[in-house]
Amino acid sequence: MSDLDRLNHFNVLGEARMVDVGEKAVTIRAAWAVGEIVMAAATLECIESGRMGKGDVLGVARIAAIQATKRTWELIPLAHPLLLTGVEVELMPAHDPARIVCHAEVRCAGQTGVEMEALTAVSVGLLTIYDMCKAIDRGMSMRNIGLLRKEGGESGLWERGPSSA
Amino acid sequence: MSDLDRLNHFNVLGEARMVDVGEKAVTIRAAWAVGEIVMAAATLECIESGRMGKGDVLGVARIAAIQATKRTWELIPLAHPLLLTGVEVELMPAHDPARIVCHAEVRCAGQTGVEMEALTAVSVGLLTIYDMCKAIDRGMSMRNIGLLRKEGGESGLWERGPSSA
Amino acid sequence: MSDLDRLNHFNVLGEARMVDVGEKAVTIRAAWAVGEIVMAAATLECIESGRMGKGDVLGVARIAAIQATKRTWELIPLAHPLLLTGVEVELMPAHDPARIVCHAEVRCAGQTGVEMEALTAVSVGLLTIYDMCKAIDRGMSMRNIGLLRKEGGESGLWERGPSSA
Amino acid sequence: MSDLDRLNHFNVLGEARMVDVGEKAVTIRAAWAVGEIVMAAATLECIESGRMGKGDVLGVARIAAIQATKRTWELIPLAHPLLLTGVEVELMPAHDPARIVCHAEVRCAGQTGVEMEALTAVSVGLLTIYDMCKAIDRGMSMRNIGLLRKEGGESGLWERGPSSA
Amino acid sequence: MSDLDRLNHFNVLGEARMVDVGEKAVTIRAAWAVGEIVMAAATLECIESGRMGKGDVLGVARIAAIQATKRTWELIPLAHPLLLTGVEVELMPAHDPARIVCHAEVRCAGQTGVEMEALTAVSVGLLTIYDMCKAIDRGMSMRNIGLLRKEGGESGLWERGPSSA
Amino acid sequence: MSDLDRLNHFNVLGEARMVDVGEKAVTIRAAWAVGEIVMAAATLECIESGRMGKGDVLGVARIAAIQATKRTWELIPLAHPLLLTGVEVELMPAHDPARIVCHAEVRCAGQTGVEMEALTAVSVGLLTIYDMCKAIDRGMSMRNIGLLRKEGGESGLWERGPSSA
Repeated sequence: MSDLDRLNHFNVLGEARMVDVGEKAVTIRAAWAVGEIVMAAATLECIESGRMGKGDVLGVARIAAIQATKRTWELIPLAHPLLLTGVEVELMPAHDPARIVCHAEVRCAGQTGVEMEALTAVSVGLLTIYDMCKAIDRGMSMRNIGLLRKEGGESGLWERGPSSA
Repeated sequence: MSDLDRLNHFNVLGEARMVDVGEKAVTIRAAWAVGEIVMAAATLECIESGRMGKGDVLGVARIAAIQATKRTWELIPLAHPLLLTGVEVELMPAHDPARIVCHAEVRCAGQTGVEMEALTAVSVGLLTIYDMCKAIDRGMSMRNIGLLRKEGGESGLWERGPSSA
Repeated sequence: MSDLDRLNHFNVLGEARMVDVGEKAVTIRAAWAVGEIVMAAATLECIESGRMGKGDVLGVARIAAIQATKRTWELIPLAHPLLLTGVEVELMPAHDPARIVCHAEVRCAGQTGVEMEALTAVSVGLLTIYDMCKAIDRGMSMRNIGLLRKEGGESGLWERGPSSA
Repeated sequence: MSDLDRLNHFNVLGEARMVDVGEKAVTIRAAWAVGEIVMAAATLECIESGRMGKGDVLGVARIAAIQATKRTWELIPLAHPLLLTGVEVELMPAHDPARIVCHAEVRCAGQTGVEMEALTAVSVGLLTIYDMCKAIDRGMSMRNIGLLRKEGGESGLWERGPSSA
Repeated sequence: MSDLDRLNHFNVLGEARMVDVGEKAVTIRAAWAVGEIVMAAATLECIESGRMGKGDVLGVARIAAIQATKRTWELIPLAHPLLLTGVEVELMPAHDPARIVCHAEVRCAGQTGVEMEALTAVSVGLLTIYDMCKAIDRGMSMRNIGLLRKEGGESGLWERGPSSA
Repeated sequence: MSDLDRLNHFNVLGEARMVDVGEKAVTIRAAWAVGEIVMAAATLECIESGRMGKGDVLGVARIAAIQATKRTWELIPLAHPLLLTGVEVELMPAHDPARIVCHAEVRCAGQTGVEMEALTAVSVGLLTIYDMCKAIDRGMSMRNIGLLRKEGGESGLWERGPSSA
C-alpha cells in the first residue's frame, strides 16, 4: 500500500468521504496537544497582573478551548462526531520569549481518536487570547501547535519524538 | 491610560464583557492572516500528487477555512457577530521545510474588525490538513500563525513589521 | 465573458471563495421557492386528520423550515451570512398524486440575495415531513423544488417561466 | 393499531415529542438516498469543464453534503442525535435532461436509523450545486429525492420498489 | 472531603475543566424538570383561544424546548455531549395567577445525567412563550424553574422534597 | 384590533411566521433583564469562597451568558437574527434567601428589539450556575426572570412597574 492510499479520507476515485469506522473496536482514547502564543513582554505582564485580581484572560480562553472540543466535528469537515468524556486545558505564562503555553488533554471512549479535539482546543484557546489582547498587541503569533501524545485505538500509543519540529 | 485599562474586554471590575461598539462608525474592514503547517517531505508529496488527480486535501481545507470565518463569533467568546462580505483562502505548498502555507483575506462592512475571522480561517484550514494527513504523519506542527495586515476602523491600517515573530 | 467565468464562486485559479459583495448596494431582497413531497394517499389522510385535532405534522415542519433559513449560511459553504427580516412558509395538502406542497417567502435588506434561504426552507420543511411520516411510508419522494421568483439586487426581478422543469 | 397511532412523533394528546428509543437494541444501521438537480445543458457543461481543471463545484457540494449529515438532528426537530461512523457521497453528471445525480450512504451503530441523515446529505448537496451555479441558471430544479434502501433496526431491510414515485 | 472539593468542575488549581466521566458505568438516566411563566390574564386567554383554532403558541414552544435539549452541551460550557434517547415536553395553562406550566422529561443511556437537558428544555420553552407574547405583555416573568426528579447514575434517585424553594 | 390579532407571530390563518420587520427603521435598541437562582446557604458560601481564590463559578457563568446572546435566534424559533453591538452580564451573591442575582444588558442597532437576547443571557447564566453546583445542591431553583427595561424601536421605552410579578 502506497502512502497515497493511506490518505484514507478519500475513496479510490479521490473523492472526500467520512471514513467508515463502524468495524473498529470501542476503546478508551486520549490525546494531548500543545501550542503557544508569543507576545510582547508588556502584553504578558498585562495578562499576568489581570490574573491576580481582575481581567481573567486565561480563564476565558480556557472555557473557549473546552467548548471548542465539543464542536470539532462541525469545524473539520471529515471528522467523526464523538462523545468526549473529559477535557482539561492548562494555560501557563512563560518567558524568553514572553508567551502563553497551552496544553490540552481530551478523553473519549469511541471508535476514532481525539487528536483533532485536542488540537482544536489548543488553537481556539490561543485565538481567544489573541482576541482579548489584540487591542494592545496585534503582532502576537502562534507556534509549535502539535500533538504530544495519543493513546488507544488500533495504532496504539504515539509520542512526539525529541527531533519533531 | 495604562495598558491594563486597554484590555477592554473587561469592565472596571475585571469582569468579561462584549465591548459596546454601537457608537463606532460602520467602515469597510479587511484583514489578512497567514500561518503554516510543517510536515514530512513524504506527506507533502502525497498532498501534491493528490492535487493533480485525486484526493484534494487543499480543496477540502479551503472550504473548511471559509466556513470557519462565518462561525468565529461562536468560537471566540467575546467576539462580535458580523456579516462578512468576502473571504479568500490560499493554500500553497512550500519546501525546506516541507509545508503548506495558508493565507486568508476577510472583508466586511461593520463596526468592528475582522482580524479574528482571518486568523480563525487560517487555524481551521491548517487543522483540516492535519486531520486529513494524520494517518501518515502525526508529527506535523503549525507555526507562524499571525496577522499580516488590517485596514479600516478607528485604528486604521496596521501591518506586520519585519521584526515580528 | 464566458459562462465559465460567471461561476463566480471560484477565483481565476479555480479555487473556491466567498465572493466579495462589499461593493454592492444594500437593497430589499425577496425570494419565493416551492417544492413538494409525494406520498401514499393513506399517509396524506393521516396528516390531514392530524391537523384537525392532534398530531400537527405541518406545524412542526413549518417551524423547522423557518429555523433553517437562519442557518443557511452554515449549511451552504460559500453562502454569505445575512440578516433576514421576514419568513413565511405555507404547507398545503394536494391530491393526484397525494402530496404536501411547500411555499416559502424570505425577505432581507442586504448586499446579496435570499434565494438559498427560500430553497433551504422548502427542503428542510419537506425533510421534516418525511421524518415524521417515515414510520408509515418510506417511499415518499420530494420533487419540483425550485425558485419561483426573486426581487432586488443588481439582476433585479426573475420569475420562473412556464417551460421551466 | 390505526395508521394515525403509528405517527409516533406525537403522544396520545397529539403533542410532538422525541420518541423514546432507549429500549431499542443498538444495531448497525445504514441508509442510501438519492436525488438530482436538473439544469440547462450549458450549466452542466460549465460544471463538467470545471471538474477537469478548475472550479470544482462537485467537490464543494460533496463536502457540504457530508457535513450536513452531522447536523441533521439540529435541522429536523424530532430527530435523535446519533454518532455516524461513515458517510460517502457521490455526485455524477447525467444527460437527457442535463443534471447532477447525488447518491449518499450513511452508516451508524445506534438505536435509531439514519434515513434522515442520508436524505439531508442529498438535499444539502443539491442545494450547494444550486448556490454555486445560480448566477448562470436560476431555473434549476431538484427532484426524485428519496430513500433507496435502509438496513438495520427492528424493521430491518427496506428497499425502494420499482413502482415508487 | 469539603463541599468546596465537591465543586468538581474545577481542578485542584481552581481551573475549570470538563470532568472525566470515562470510568463511570453507562446506565439509563432520566430527569424531570418544571417551571412556569406568569402573565396577565388577558395574555393567557389569548394563548388559550389560539390553541383552539389558530396561533399555536404552545406548539411552537414545545418544539423549541425539545430542540434545545439537543444543544444543551453547546450552551452550558462544561456539560458533556450525550445522545438523548427521548424527550417529552408538556405545557399547561393554569390560573391564579394566570400562567403556563412547563414539564420536561429527558432520557438517555450514558455516563452522565440529563438534569441540564431537562432544565434547558423548560427554560427555552418558557422563553419561546415570552417571545411570542411579548408584543402584548412585556411584564411576564418566569419562576419555580427547577429539577423535580432524576434517576440513574451513581447517585441514583433524587426527588425534590416538599420544602424545596 | 383585538389582542389576538396582536400575537403577530402568526398570520391570518394562525400559522407561525417570522414577522417581516423590513419596513421598520434601524434604531439603537437596548434591553435589561434580571433573574436569580436560589440555593442552600452552604452552596452560596462555596461559590463565594471560590471567587476569592479558585473555582470561578461566576466567571464561567458570565461567559456562557454572553455567548448565549449570540445564539438566541437559533434557540427561539421565530426570533430574528441580529448583530449585537454590546453585552454586559453581572452576577451578584445575595442573602435571605441565599442566591445569585443575574443582570444582563444587551445593545444593538437594528430593526427589532433585544429583549429575548437579554432574557436568554440571564437564563443561560443561571443554568450554568446550576450545572456547576448541582453535585452539591440539586434543589436550587430559578425565579424572577423577567425584563426590567427596554429602549428603542417604535414602542420606545418600557420599564417594569412596581407591581410586576
